[in-house]
Amino acid sequence: MSGSTIGTVFRVTTWGESHGSALGAVIDGCPPGLLLSEGQIQTALDKRKPGEQRFASPRQEADHVEILSGVFEGKTMGTPIALLIRNRDADSSAYEHLRTVFRPGHGDFTYYRKYGLRDHRGGGRASGRETAARVAAGAVAAQVTGTAGIEVLAYTVALGGIHISRSGEGIHKESLENDLFCPDPDAVRRMTERLAEVRQQGDTLGGIVEIVVRGCPTGLGEPVFDKMDADLAGALMSIGTVKGVEIGAGFAVADLLGSESNDPLSPGGFLSNSAGGILAGITNGEEIVLRVACKPIPSISRTQETVDTEGHSTTLSIGGRHDICVIPRIVPVCEAMVQIVLADHLLRQKAGTL
Amino acid sequence: MSGSTIGTVFRVTTWGESHGSALGAVIDGCPPGLLLSEGQIQTALDKRKPGEQRFASPRQEADHVEILSGVFEGKTMGTPIALLIRNRDADSSAYEHLRTVFRPGHGDFTYYRKYGLRDHRGGGRASGRETAARVAAGAVAAQVTGTAGIEVLAYTVALGGIHISRSGEGIHKESLENDLFCPDPDAVRRMTERLAEVRQQGDTLGGIVEIVVRGCPTGLGEPVFDKMDADLAGALMSIGTVKGVEIGAGFAVADLLGSESNDPLSPGGFLSNSAGGILAGITNGEEIVLRVACKPIPSISRTQETVDTEGHSTTLSIGGRHDICVIPRIVPVCEAMVQIVLADHLLRQKAGTL
Amino acid sequence: MSGSTIGTVFRVTTWGESHGSALGAVIDGCPPGLLLSEGQIQTALDKRKPGEQRFASPRQEADHVEILSGVFEGKTMGTPIALLIRNRDADSSAYEHLRTVFRPGHGDFTYYRKYGLRDHRGGGRASGRETAARVAAGAVAAQVTGTAGIEVLAYTVALGGIHISRSGEGIHKESLENDLFCPDPDAVRRMTERLAEVRQQGDTLGGIVEIVVRGCPTGLGEPVFDKMDADLAGALMSIGTVKGVEIGAGFAVADLLGSESNDPLSPGGFLSNSAGGILAGITNGEEIVLRVACKPIPSISRTQETVDTEGHSTTLSIGGRHDICVIPRIVPVCEAMVQIVLADHLLRQKAGTL
Amino acid sequence: MSGSTIGTVFRVTTWGESHGSALGAVIDGCPPGLLLSEGQIQTALDKRKPGEQRFASPRQEADHVEILSGVFEGKTMGTPIALLIRNRDADSSAYEHLRTVFRPGHGDFTYYRKYGLRDHRGGGRASGRETAARVAAGAVAAQVTGTAGIEVLAYTVALGGIHISRSGEGIHKESLENDLFCPDPDAVRRMTERLAEVRQQGDTLGGIVEIVVRGCPTGLGEPVFDKMDADLAGALMSIGTVKGVEIGAGFAVADLLGSESNDPLSPGGFLSNSAGGILAGITNGEEIVLRVACKPIPSISRTQETVDTEGHSTTLSIGGRHDICVIPRIVPVCEAMVQIVLADHLLRQKAGTL
Repeated sequence: MSGSTIGTVFRVTTWGESHGSALGAVIDGCPPGLLLSEGQIQTALDKRKPGEQRFASPRQEADHVEILSGVFEGKTMGTPIALLIRNRDADSSAYEHLRTVFRPGHGDFTYYRKYGLRDHRGGGRASGRETAARVAAGAVAAQVTGTAGIEVLAYTVALGGIHISRSGEGIHKESLENDLFCPDPDAVRRMTERLAEVRQQGDTLGGIVEIVVRGCPTGLGEPVFDKMDADLAGALMSIGTVKGVEIGAGFAVADLLGSESNDPLSPGGFLSNSAGGILAGITNGEEIVLRVACKPIPSISRTQETVDTEGHSTTLSIGGRHDICVIPRIVPVCEAMVQIVLADHLLRQKAGTL
Repeated sequence: MSGSTIGTVFRVTTWGESHGSALGAVIDGCPPGLLLSEGQIQTALDKRKPGEQRFASPRQEADHVEILSGVFEGKTMGTPIALLIRNRDADSSAYEHLRTVFRPGHGDFTYYRKYGLRDHRGGGRASGRETAARVAAGAVAAQVTGTAGIEVLAYTVALGGIHISRSGEGIHKESLENDLFCPDPDAVRRMTERLAEVRQQGDTLGGIVEIVVRGCPTGLGEPVFDKMDADLAGALMSIGTVKGVEIGAGFAVADLLGSESNDPLSPGGFLSNSAGGILAGITNGEEIVLRVACKPIPSISRTQETVDTEGHSTTLSIGGRHDICVIPRIVPVCEAMVQIVLADHLLRQKAGTL
Repeated sequence: MSGSTIGTVFRVTTWGESHGSALGAVIDGCPPGLLLSEGQIQTALDKRKPGEQRFASPRQEADHVEILSGVFEGKTMGTPIALLIRNRDADSSAYEHLRTVFRPGHGDFTYYRKYGLRDHRGGGRASGRETAARVAAGAVAAQVTGTAGIEVLAYTVALGGIHISRSGEGIHKESLENDLFCPDPDAVRRMTERLAEVRQQGDTLGGIVEIVVRGCPTGLGEPVFDKMDADLAGALMSIGTVKGVEIGAGFAVADLLGSESNDPLSPGGFLSNSAGGILAGITNGEEIVLRVACKPIPSISRTQETVDTEGHSTTLSIGGRHDICVIPRIVPVCEAMVQIVLADHLLRQKAGTL
Repeated sequence: MSGSTIGTVFRVTTWGESHGSALGAVIDGCPPGLLLSEGQIQTALDKRKPGEQRFASPRQEADHVEILSGVFEGKTMGTPIALLIRNRDADSSAYEHLRTVFRPGHGDFTYYRKYGLRDHRGGGRASGRETAARVAAGAVAAQVTGTAGIEVLAYTVALGGIHISRSGEGIHKESLENDLFCPDPDAVRRMTERLAEVRQQGDTLGGIVEIVVRGCPTGLGEPVFDKMDADLAGALMSIGTVKGVEIGAGFAVADLLGSESNDPLSPGGFLSNSAGGILAGITNGEEIVLRVACKPIPSISRTQETVDTEGHSTTLSIGGRHDICVIPRIVPVCEAMVQIVLADHLLRQKAGTL
């Protein structure tokens, strides 16, 4: 059944397989009158583009985006915005040997069991390539949230077991202008070494991304099931690589006392931010702080045990063109998902009051 | 805007305030022909009932459930199932002094900012009491998932900084028959002591709950946004107390190598379960393993700094009837949310194939 | 699968069987701060109450409504509003002989084929009694649309083949204060005679209801699938008795020229209203005019051919307590459905602009 | 707010403006394993293509469709199917004089009032050209309904005041192979004359289309709001030109007695079909029969009174390239909408039973 749409008012539908002819997104529910150009979306796409970092896949996709509808004379029309990105550098022949073999850690086995057939070329719909459409849609969402002064910033706080020394408040865009979108230069150096080391071993690495939202108005998020944190958690967990999401104090909160985890209020605002900017599912005006755990990329050249579509034992060593770590390419994807959820809730809040 | 409904095919809508006349749920999309009685739902509700454990609120609610529709001669009809639970022991006078004061860690401030008014009595809609309706709906969901042989088990793995020695596989229902739904008797003893100690200090504790799903068929979950893990994470994060959700290896996965986190396949199944039973958003037939971090209950009798609705500084000491820890009462709520998501995806999968 | 919810932002879910213990509605997405009392809803319910008109079923239901949630100190809270109406006068024994027989013109056969079981008592979920919940929800919707100055008026324009002489503009509330909600006194007299005549014959009558919306702002309705007229048509056709819906010139438009059906614009507004207040799915500020065709009530005492659940031929004469015509009782139901759709689109429009 | 998606399980989202670079559809929720080719979709598109009939717009669009995703090696994958149709022959210069003038009978005025801006070129999103995307999606839906043996047939029953002598049962595909998709050769001749006459006068004509569904299984449609007839009526009324929808006996039912409108059941099936194949919102196994009233195309060359965006009086004579009547081009659009609703309910029914 369907499952390629996110959002209630600001609705994003993505489509496309890794080695199909194209991928894209339709955004329905974007308000009229916003400035929107292909250039703005392209800038966001360029941030996640493969082949720019040293540890990324050598697959060279221009990821050129075309706006097919919903924009007229530079402005959104209130009608659906269709975005198209052609796949150009797909080399499907490299995947022919995977037609009947399930790659460990990938969706090969589960797609086959779910659908009875699958597109074996580059993971098909389950490929990380689908996230290009999310990033494009996120750039549209950013035009919506920008009208409310909202800013979303994601960055690397851990990679391959190397954790940065501090996070959260005080991290600014400028400190992230490096290959790993990481605010700690010393950590960047050590992470880079670790990446090189692991590449030698034919292995891959995971990490943790933190996302901070600044300037978010109070009152966004809906009670009960569509809480702001619930929708953010769902959206972030929908990124294939993510195995955990936490907000504010996160898992550490489990070991605190109530008197420690409660954020006292003062006339000038909250005096701490264990809550991560969300109380009872609704934004409280403080920074929203989220962290997601990313698993290592499952495509490794080290030999793995697996089975084929007949259920027989076999082994597999995956060559092809793959990243060593989803970081840094996942960073703009996290930003995009948060932008999409915020845009949706910003508009939902308008629908909630007379 | 709305936000009180969860699910796509199996749809649960809850309603009700803590100190209103009643609360309840409507379940639309439950298949016909399932056995369903008030007794089954009551058993689930009794598990979360306040006043049964030594560290729970002394508010005495029978939580008697009435099935108002959708069941005829003991069987579900395919029509909406309406469940009603009357509030009987609500003592609103105890909340009168909170009419103009925001309790730290609660939704008082954010509800007021969102709606411009709020029900100050016991947290209104934001109260944990709303979860009674979820548990009732979860009992209906369990009838659906039961037809597929699915079993959901939640239990305490940490409380007040005390972590149990092992978790996951091998934990069985019988070992959870204690006040804290915790499989480690030694931990139960220490947690109990910690609860007593903290109650003396007028403070509260957090913890971690683990949820295991057994017998889940392969192929459940939809690609991209409605991944099984995304929907589970969203559903669990929609519980007011939850600040983090992880699946399988969770946050620990960030420090692993690809060769460590990939689960090899063999003719007999997967050889490990870092994935936590979900690959590319779709169940792989292994146990689904989830953990959620619960914050300490924010109602503490220790004095806290806060502000009133006029924005003036004030202090607050919360008496009233409150639990010391959401654990164990949150345990059946976690089970219920997982049951609801699984029931929904079980039916979605049927809609996805001809 | 589900199907008991209508609306996108203003969401109404109804539940309940004709002879179950109760029926009701949950309204999620109602804005906060609106005045709402049980008295207001009761007034609407009293308008459709059985047993008040001479040609209605003698079943005496007080249809007493209870607001269970979402209203505090006389105002809506922005949280779900649950409404409860107990069934008190249901006489299920009168239906025992229908347990295995399908009544022609009713949902008995189709429910049985769809679900494999059915509640044979008074039509179960398919009963017209379900519309009480719609009317109650419509009264809440009226509080929303009232803030925008919208007024909805429905009335009888045909009954048993007797058509009134004029309709549309110029019809006012005062002229509808008769047993048949019909603005033409002469027609009322003749319709009343026809009803008496047909009751003698053990038969029933159909009719046509017209609905006029006044004061509706321009700009409501969404392009393409969620056009205002599409949503109104769907909502009205969801009333069991309705077999046709038309807007503005309706079916007569098929015989007109473009130069006749186009409504010219002038600085003071449109010069005619063939469009019925909706252009390209969006309200144009003129009166919205709709008409629905209602079939005769299928429960007749005249002998009918039918089959039983085994597929064997049998005959049936339906006694019991039934109306002779859905008019006038359907009139407030039509108003309610239109109010619900308008409330939803009024809020959707807010979500569509920044 | 959004509004470009229809369906619950089989979900169709269309996008595109008349004079934008392209238009298209995304179909999410199509089951895997169905044969699907561009040729199949092209055949459906060719049926509604402009410029093929003598009374159609001379705009020459190849309407070439490209499948961008969701199909691999000739079969649907269960993933979203993206369809792309480039606009090639759009002549926007012909619309420049409409930039500040509202065409009567079009959405110009209401779009402008809703959004504060509009695409004046050929109606933008409100153009009948959007229906090309619906027809393409309908061809995909037909692959789904075809698996259940469902056949949908639409045809002209009235045009310009000329009504055919009989309709419904007994009409077969072969009799519709004429320019007007009309089963009555004598009516075709007179309609053709009427079209020629009206073209001379610079005017346009309306008509009525009937749609018959054969082979539909019993049990499709959901109770209460998502009744099969409610969803069909909403879907058909969402076609810009449609001002009325009726089912079975339709408006004529209002004048019948219950004993006339009830369809008696016999062991061999229903003995008549006043119900039009739907009872209580659920299909009963008989032919589904629908009729829609289509207004004349509002673009006429006769001079009309109107206003400009400043609210000043002006007159307008529309040249450009326009059809004289939406019939026959609307016929495949009606078929497509019915196919889409049926495909959705066929899959919903699967989700409704265990």
